[in-house]
Amino acid sequence: MFTKTLREAPADEVAKNAILLIRAGFISKQMAGAYAYFPLGKKVLDNIVQIIREEMDAIGGEEIQMTVLQNPDVWQKSGRWDDDIMDVWFKTKLQNGSEVGLAPTHEEPLTHSLMPFIRSYKDLPCYPYQFQTKFRNEVRAKSGLMRGREFLMKDLYSYSLGQADHEAFYEKCAESYIRVFNRLGIGDITFKTFASGGSFSKFSHEFQALSPVGEDTIYVSRKSKIAINKEVYNDEVLANLGLNRDELTEEKAVEVGNIFTLGTKYTEALGLTYTDEAGAVQPVYGGSYGIGPSRLMGFLAEHFADDKGLVWPENIAPARVCLINIGQDSSVMANTEEVYDQLIKHGVEVIWDDRDARPGEKFADADLMGIPHRVVVSPRLVAEGKLEHKARTSEETSSVTLGELLKLV
Amino acid sequence: MFTKTLREAPADEVAKNAILLIRAGFISKQMAGAYAYFPLGKKVLDNIVQIIREEMDAIGGEEIQMTVLQNPDVWQKSGRWDDDIMDVWFKTKLQNGSEVGLAPTHEEPLTHSLMPFIRSYKDLPCYPYQFQTKFRNEVRAKSGLMRGREFLMKDLYSYSLGQADHEAFYEKCAESYIRVFNRLGIGDITFKTFASGGSFSKFSHEFQALSPVGEDTIYVSRKSKIAINKEVYNDEVLANLGLNRDELTEEKAVEVGNIFTLGTKYTEALGLTYTDEAGAVQPVYGGSYGIGPSRLMGFLAEHFADDKGLVWPENIAPARVCLINIGQDSSVMANTEEVYDQLIKHGVEVIWDDRDARPGEKFADADLMGIPHRVVVSPRLVAEGKLEHKARTSEETSSVTLGELLKLV
Repeated sequence: MFTKTLREAPADEVAKNAILLIRAGFISKQMAGAYAYFPLGKKVLDNIVQIIREEMDAIGGEEIQMTVLQNPDVWQKSGRWDDDIMDVWFKTKLQNGSEVGLAPTHEEPLTHSLMPFIRSYKDLPCYPYQFQTKFRNEVRAKSGLMRGREFLMKDLYSYSLGQADHEAFYEKCAESYIRVFNRLGIGDITFKTFASGGSFSKFSHEFQALSPVGEDTIYVSRKSKIAINKEVYNDEVLANLGLNRDELTEEKAVEVGNIFTLGTKYTEALGLTYTDEAGAVQPVYGGSYGIGPSRLMGFLAEHFADDKGLVWPENIAPARVCLINIGQDSSVMANTEEVYDQLIKHGVEVIWDDRDARPGEKFADADLMGIPHRVVVSPRLVAEGKLEHKARTSEETSSVTLGELLKLV
Repeated sequence: MFTKTLREAPADEVAKNAILLIRAGFISKQMAGAYAYFPLGKKVLDNIVQIIREEMDAIGGEEIQMTVLQNPDVWQKSGRWDDDIMDVWFKTKLQNGSEVGLAPTHEEPLTHSLMPFIRSYKDLPCYPYQFQTKFRNEVRAKSGLMRGREFLMKDLYSYSLGQADHEAFYEKCAESYIRVFNRLGIGDITFKTFASGGSFSKFSHEFQALSPVGEDTIYVSRKSKIAINKEVYNDEVLANLGLNRDELTEEKAVEVGNIFTLGTKYTEALGLTYTDEAGAVQPVYGGSYGIGPSRLMGFLAEHFADDKGLVWPENIAPARVCLINIGQDSSVMANTEEVYDQLIKHGVEVIWDDRDARPGEKFADADLMGIPHRVVVSPRLVAEGKLEHKARTSEETSSVTLGELLKLV
């Protein structure tokens, strides 16, 4: 592994998630709001992506990949090419002088690209989704991975026959988001949150994770496991939802996902219609569903961190075990290699810190990297036929046999 | 699956690979040189990527992900920010007016980003690689996936102690490229080809696949399994390589990979040095190694196609089997479902064309999509307890039992 832990993050970095991830060698700052992923960071990001992918596939999502470069034509149809309407465009030019944009989202090009495939009611519904690098020309980008100018987005778009079918899928997707957040270890602190809707729906929904680092204010009903965003926190909405102010608590939270009813806004603008069973031409009914894997990675890094560094949930850690040999004598090295091989053989991802370094340095690095299990091999432990195990989230160590370790991890 | 086969590609599309891939529903043209990947195309691309990933991991590659957005600072150090030196930049601006670029390659930012990690000879070698969407502002982009303005690139960069270590890795990477092309089904037509080098090496190497659709001219020695690019085809080079003109044949070919010795060109410009065992400061010695998965996909599509459409090698086909029911009666549907379930259970990817359509239409679509095995269930076959199998590359059909089919695929 070519990365090392570092003493310092760049002086201009102020976000805690980025400082920790840079110091642990997971990411590398390329400019404000644009970070490269080094091997450990790439693994965490891939693990988050894979969890989301499995849940999107389970609700009928079909994975695609749209382009970054955007032809203005399709955006002019919805009006969103205009920088006054969408103020986060990066725009550039082809050699012939014509303007192209870098996609901040993909409603227009996807809706346009579906036109050859959707003619009849038999062609619907469809749920394309992608993991795509998106670009937003943010004025400020000081939140590390939590608000990037270049960031990874999972965006799913639903195309349904009408409002009833749309609402059924919308609910199904909301439930799949809950499963995603459960698998990421933040299910207990994440609330489906009512936020302002659009022309086609009273509400949209955010998924807000409670956190002192949050920039949003929400009102949470733990009893009902829902919340209300400050922007729509009023008597009418409370009555709508059958909630009383006294069962809600004000909390700081981070938005980790959102789902929108688009209705026929983009399909009408782009002309995506179908012929229904009666032969009438109808606009397709749409929704969009976003989760930002890179933002989530930043949130998880920052939320779970302690004073020693990162603390990854087991499901997304870059490795399950950090294996540490103390000293380099041949019985220790042979024993560590045996443990390493057995872990690999049992499908457990492991980082073996085989550096000739002080134990304290290795322990501190394992903690900073946030690897869930630390396993130590030392001359004394070899003599006893044991290994030392410590969970990242615990202060206590225990002596275990190799067999016990394999069960544990 | 939301895609369908289409009768026509867009009128402005002239590249055979793009015409076929669009008609088969694999890709969608967003503008000249920028294509979206729909579900079948995404699967082919992912399959190509996975083969390359396995081979890069096997030679010690460590997967990373650099950014698209580029800070001019690091490129100014090598001189390549200048549009006269590198004429394919897309450039855009942050809200504060400062210029940023879209990466056409990553030598400069990666070399710069390694500086915190490489100090001593003990920190080398390292071989980071990525699959990254790259941008090149090509004046013309008429070759479909084979020359894009936005395209996927696998780029590995080697950082070694010096020339000898570099050359050993360079050779190892060349061998891994041969394994990649073998696994993609084009090993027999792909030649390691001597091309012009740079300041640090007499030659670079291209991997050229013989094809009538090729734009490059090379001179091939089938006996030695090497070739020479036209640009360096002269008496001196022939003598160097111990080849005679009469053992070489002139061929058209497509470049499917390339490897370069960079020497200390970028590491000196960016200041990436290490301290050797004697305590002296040395520049790191580099190389770069590219394969374009999207270009390869275009090449494979075009190269293997016949008059009925695409013909995918088994390893990268979006599915192994296209399963077709003829008629919709209940015994046929139940039987087809049983075959489908058994294929899935045995890990065979299968597309079930369950449309209520004419057999001829289903057969033509299976051919156009290039699925390696076609399996038919009809009332007659159900009565006989058989299935009909046809390979995409053969005209002959055969009757097989389910057990025989599972062995076959």
